[in-house]
Amino acid sequence: MHEVTNRLQVVLKESGLGSGVLTVFCRHTSCSLVIMENADPSARRDLAAWLERLVPANDPHFTHTFEGPDDMPSHIKMALTRTSESIPFAEGKLLLGAWQGVYLWEHRHAAHSCQLIVTVVGE
Amino acid sequence: MHEVTNRLQVVLKESGLGSGVLTVFCRHTSCSLVIMENADPSARRDLAAWLERLVPANDPHFTHTFEGPDDMPSHIKMALTRTSESIPFAEGKLLLGAWQGVYLWEHRHAAHSCQLIVTVVGE
Amino acid sequence: MHEVTNRLQVVLKESGLGSGVLTVFCRHTSCSLVIMENADPSARRDLAAWLERLVPANDPHFTHTFEGPDDMPSHIKMALTRTSESIPFAEGKLLLGAWQGVYLWEHRHAAHSCQLIVTVVGE
Repeated sequence: MHEVTNRLQVVLKESGLGSGVLTVFCRHTSCSLVIMENADPSARRDLAAWLERLVPANDPHFTHTFEGPDDMPSHIKMALTRTSESIPFAEGKLLLGAWQGVYLWEHRHAAHSCQLIVTVVGE
Repeated sequence: MHEVTNRLQVVLKESGLGSGVLTVFCRHTSCSLVIMENADPSARRDLAAWLERLVPANDPHFTHTFEGPDDMPSHIKMALTRTSESIPFAEGKLLLGAWQGVYLWEHRHAAHSCQLIVTVVGE
Repeated sequence: MHEVTNRLQVVLKESGLGSGVLTVFCRHTSCSLVIMENADPSARRDLAAWLERLVPANDPHFTHTFEGPDDMPSHIKMALTRTSESIPFAEGKLLLGAWQGVYLWEHRHAAHSCQLIVTVVGE
């Protein structure tokens, strides 16, 4: 889970807009977005470990496995979390709660480059 | 699960806008949003009970437990549902389906105050 | 799972807008949206089969069953996926990733008609 909150804030500042909605979109089906507690890393570790137990690799039911045992679990974990997220802003700042961080969640084990698209609508 | 549909409709009416998209955003990581059947309460009860069985408190794997046994389950239940939801409107009314209600879902057992931010974009 | 990507692209073209955000909204609580791999159908089959194992019909805990054994599972599967999705576009084209398709996911077994509302905001 990679926190992208600051990078979203930078994009927002560059837009020059004061208030509106910022939309983040993840262009992949093996990674996803989640807005999660950003204070104590143990919350994110427990979330990831729980999801790993819910969707274990090497499930013998999976047939879509040609990219490896983490291929199908990555799609399922993506489907259970989010591809797009819409975050309000005012006075040029994201109105996230005190403990909220925006995370890009890579579900494959190997390193991949991921693209997020950020769109800002407002005035 | 607290229905907030009417309060969203009030905010929409106050905006004076006719058509566009209303975005609701939940500023917390232990509660979330879901658009669920609003006719028969048994559907919401069954959903909540199912999620409670999927993510039981007192799971011995959890390490993030200093706020109590419902701390980590609340984050997981949030991650499996939604933090933001975008609802279209026309002629000043939300275009929800006949059986759809918008719910704020508090996953902690103790009472908390929750903040939702509503943004209306349209004309 | 019915792919609606092309139909969204048609609506976008008809809007005449160049860049912005397209929002899709599903007006039902027994079907939902998911942006999933559109290359190999086995990925969608495995996802659907996994979710069927997670939320089996005939779970004896369910009380909301008067529309049949697939009534309550359809609501739960909806709650675990998405009711709204926001997709950016530029130069009149949806900025989906190379392997992303937008799917309407009907969770009931009998045929139903489903309504999606598409809203386009941009310039």
